Amino acid sequence: MEKRYYPYEDFLADTRSLAQMIDWEFDTIIPIARGGLSLGHLLGEFYDIREVYSINTIGYEDTLKLDSVKVFNIPELTEAKNVLVVDDIVDSGDTMIEVLKVLHKAYPAVNFKTASLFYKKSAKIAPDWSVQEADRWIEFFWSVDLTRKK
Amino acid sequence: MEKRYYPYEDFLADTRSLAQMIDWEFDTIIPIARGGLSLGHLLGEFYDIREVYSINTIGYEDTLKLDSVKVFNIPELTEAKNVLVVDDIVDSGDTMIEVLKVLHKAYPAVNFKTASLFYKKSAKIAPDWSVQEADRWIEFFWSVDLTRKK
Repeated sequence: MEKRYYPYEDFLADTRSLAQMIDWEFDTIIPIARGGLSLGHLLGEFYDIREVYSINTIGYEDTLKLDSVKVFNIPELTEAKNVLVVDDIVDSGDTMIEVLKVLHKAYPAVNFKTASLFYKKSAKIAPDWSVQEADRWIEFFWSVDLTRKK
Repeated sequence: MEKRYYPYEDFLADTRSLAQMIDWEFDTIIPIARGGLSLGHLLGEFYDIREVYSINTIGYEDTLKLDSVKVFNIPELTEAKNVLVVDDIVDSGDTMIEVLKVLHKAYPAVNFKTASLFYKKSAKIAPDWSVQEADRWIEFFWSVDLTRKK
């Protein structure tokens, strides 16, 4: 598949766009690690929210169902009311769906909304806010800069 | 105090230096949120470690002791052996000391080492690996780019 390199400058511009779109007040940010960590960092600074808690997932194939997602490191949300779950990309949607399922089950009284930089039209779930459609494989700067640029 | 703007490019160069310094194998990365999140993200990608778990702190003044640090969102480390705790800066050292105290107490069998981009000579604890001495107030890109650059 054709690749698109996504540099820090584009990330910054899109994160600004995302922040302008989000018409909701939230008290907690949950970045899905690893992809959502830098986004969660910048948004946490921008909104001055200290409650930035990572949640982790691992995708795997098992014999019964392809593309299962295991969610781990579930944060404690005892004082949260409105939580923004963020990720770099909503691709198939499996990760976001599973994360929301786990969070809703653990914290039924908390409101969750979702934001991502990229989305795919074919995803099974649409994030509440998103900036760009992903029509190619995205090479995010956080994945390649450290090994590539000199 | 004089300020020094710290752009993404410097962060990338210093993170690369840090990765070259770290002569230790670890299975888990704990970024201290928020400052350590972007560093934890890039290192997680570089080492291909999925176990990147944020930990959170809040500093406050109370009547008995100045600069107390409360640590919260302590990750579960049941499968971890060697854990790298990362932060943007070790300033007074109070945050890192308190985070290590809480982690050692909760997980006495786990090995913890520490890495930061910046350190201060006056800090009460020296990180195991660090890149630059902070002689001015550092304006990290993640704190200011979203509001400042157009």
